[in-house]
Amino acid sequence: MTEPVVRVGIIGAGNVGGALVRLLADESRSSALLDAARSRLEVVGVAVKDEKKERPDIPASLLTTDAQALAAREDVDVVVELIGGVSDARTYIETALRRGASVVTANKALMAEAGTELIEIAFANNADLYYEAAVGGGVPILRSLRTSLAAERITRVMGIVNGTTNFILSKMTSDGTDYASALEEAQALGYAENDPTADVEGFDAAAKVAILSFLSFGTVLDGATIEREGISTIRAVDVAFAKRSGYVIKLLGIAERVGDHAISRRVQPTLVPDEHPLASVHGAYNAVFVEGVTTGPLMWLGQGAGGEPTAAAVLGDIVAVARNKVSGRHDTPFSVDRTLQSFPPGELQSAFYLSIDVLDKPGVLASVASVFGDHDVSILSMDQSGFGDEARLTFFTHRAFASDVSATLKDLEHLDAVDAIGSCLCVIDGGTA
Amino acid sequence: MTEPVVRVGIIGAGNVGGALVRLLADESRSSALLDAARSRLEVVGVAVKDEKKERPDIPASLLTTDAQALAAREDVDVVVELIGGVSDARTYIETALRRGASVVTANKALMAEAGTELIEIAFANNADLYYEAAVGGGVPILRSLRTSLAAERITRVMGIVNGTTNFILSKMTSDGTDYASALEEAQALGYAENDPTADVEGFDAAAKVAILSFLSFGTVLDGATIEREGISTIRAVDVAFAKRSGYVIKLLGIAERVGDHAISRRVQPTLVPDEHPLASVHGAYNAVFVEGVTTGPLMWLGQGAGGEPTAAAVLGDIVAVARNKVSGRHDTPFSVDRTLQSFPPGELQSAFYLSIDVLDKPGVLASVASVFGDHDVSILSMDQSGFGDEARLTFFTHRAFASDVSATLKDLEHLDAVDAIGSCLCVIDGGTA
Repeated sequence: MTEPVVRVGIIGAGNVGGALVRLLADESRSSALLDAARSRLEVVGVAVKDEKKERPDIPASLLTTDAQALAAREDVDVVVELIGGVSDARTYIETALRRGASVVTANKALMAEAGTELIEIAFANNADLYYEAAVGGGVPILRSLRTSLAAERITRVMGIVNGTTNFILSKMTSDGTDYASALEEAQALGYAENDPTADVEGFDAAAKVAILSFLSFGTVLDGATIEREGISTIRAVDVAFAKRSGYVIKLLGIAERVGDHAISRRVQPTLVPDEHPLASVHGAYNAVFVEGVTTGPLMWLGQGAGGEPTAAAVLGDIVAVARNKVSGRHDTPFSVDRTLQSFPPGELQSAFYLSIDVLDKPGVLASVASVFGDHDVSILSMDQSGFGDEARLTFFTHRAFASDVSATLKDLEHLDAVDAIGSCLCVIDGGTA
Repeated sequence: MTEPVVRVGIIGAGNVGGALVRLLADESRSSALLDAARSRLEVVGVAVKDEKKERPDIPASLLTTDAQALAAREDVDVVVELIGGVSDARTYIETALRRGASVVTANKALMAEAGTELIEIAFANNADLYYEAAVGGGVPILRSLRTSLAAERITRVMGIVNGTTNFILSKMTSDGTDYASALEEAQALGYAENDPTADVEGFDAAAKVAILSFLSFGTVLDGATIEREGISTIRAVDVAFAKRSGYVIKLLGIAERVGDHAISRRVQPTLVPDEHPLASVHGAYNAVFVEGVTTGPLMWLGQGAGGEPTAAAVLGDIVAVARNKVSGRHDTPFSVDRTLQSFPPGELQSAFYLSIDVLDKPGVLASVASVFGDHDVSILSMDQSGFGDEARLTFFTHRAFASDVSATLKDLEHLDAVDAIGSCLCVIDGGTA
């Protein structure tokens, strides 16, 4: 056997790392893997926190608790970072890249925070840095953006990129349950953490939007500056009303070109019409919908989480690194366009859905409607439901400026007839072929 | 400017070729294209049939009617074949490959017929042969199969890969029209040819299945041997009954691993449950659904036809060729596994939908049901509808061998109580995450 060998060091042997070690050791795949990687992939070390833990799939001789030493080992060609978190992971990745080793990571939080710098370090050291598993789990969307769509003029990327929130919203839609019960069920099934904040408040989705936007438009990877709205305030009545009106509420991560020099990046619960391909992305599925000037709409769908699908994406990256290594080539990273501005959220135009709890008495509708008119927000349709304390007005607007809708809401809050603002959500259109 | 130049010769300036020339000349994209291709793409010749035809987008100096000479020109680095058909296209492609030029083609018929040989010629001459646009138009599925999923063990690929038939079936589903009217509408809108045979009888889809199966499993590219059933016999009553039962009828191209050494490849109208991601692929959209052992289910969706989306896929391939050329590398083709057998269609197991026109008289159901029993075909549910001449029995079966179902149908035809066999279609299950 004279095939070249590519030596792999894995940092982290949890859910994903364990599945990856099993994949790399799977005899039934070894010939396909050899074909794909054009080299033999050899795991030479696995860094773990607790060396004592039972790990039947990993030979004890490979285990180490010194992740930093593994990243620094000169005979490791590819360092695979699967511990998550920002600080330690960054240290290990930088160590590997600076000595010219390539890195594969599934770490969306780190890429969203420091990706631009890491990519520059990789470039400067002739190393590859791949992170397919950071968005959409097993869905191979990032490589398509880097390769097949590299020359395409993308106008908008919209993703259902968080399985937890999609599970919760799907439950609320199919069963009519409220947010709290759906969250509880998600937690019971292991789809949501005990502290669900990162998922339900959109932090996780925002990191993925940062990555998608970087690969689609060349924006700097700064996830913290992305507009973010979660799903914890979505009410069962909104989900039900949307459903009756032909919509489903989805938490979308959106990156969108506005004019030539600005990109709007945001995470927001959105009314998606039933006929839109994103509407039928249920449960723990993830999907990314890309609109290009020439390609038209495209969508990728698959399992957004889970050890095995995520490990499959990581393995795809390791194979790509190995192919590059064998042919002596490295992938130049996408260039960052530092002239791109963040588009001001208030200047965005969209159709809106609003639900407003009102007092059930004569003249309410007229006074509410006149506030819309004051701010040039044009009403497309209105529905009145409930009685007494439960009375509620629901509006769909024509396209309006977000700032005008905000101003409308602010004024409405001060109306005597208004009990509370229920929801204010963007509405997208069909996006069909 | 010292960037390398990659010289492109285009054969065919129809719908796709014209869009491609416009894309390559688009000033607003030139910088992005330079970044993507890591070289300047220069069109040095466009071969057309009729040199006299008005072509405002193409400089007259580039036009030629001698396609063979363009393919043979030593200064052309990439030959792009967009004329379709098998014989001439093959000559041009072979000419280019044999002198070491790379080739990009959208020609599914040629790839399905002679792809294995062409890939061998490309390999022997250190040339690239890419054909992303041959399946799914603008949907970049093939590159994902070659790269991200190269190490994945794929078990089944199912595609809605023909827009014409999907448009017709979508119309029949949404409007309740019969096949003839839906076809007429498709023809009026330009979605179907005057002679629709290639689309409605599944020849086009079979060519795409051959390509998907080659990239997923390594089967030889021989489209002619694929089992094929069209949609012209699908009746409005079947579409309506499927819909009431929670299914939609789709023409699926399927390539599926059965055991370790056999692949089943077929094109067949299929009942797809509403909750399956393929069920919501409407109108002229195409989609490919891939099931992998590790990735789980994945789906790609987009516009399966049209000049611009197809040209975008061709451009993606040209960019890939240019990147390879600049880094002095060529993509080794997938190896063909000549030990793989075609799985015998009769031995396939599936749930089935059957509708049978019967005489409306006592005892019919018992005599029909007993024939199912004779062949070990177990009935899941039965429905009786219509009266007199219109009486009809509709069955869903449990999983059964296709050969047993065929034998059942043969016996049923001879029953006095049976007027005619209406339809016999496979039923797939939900395939959810």
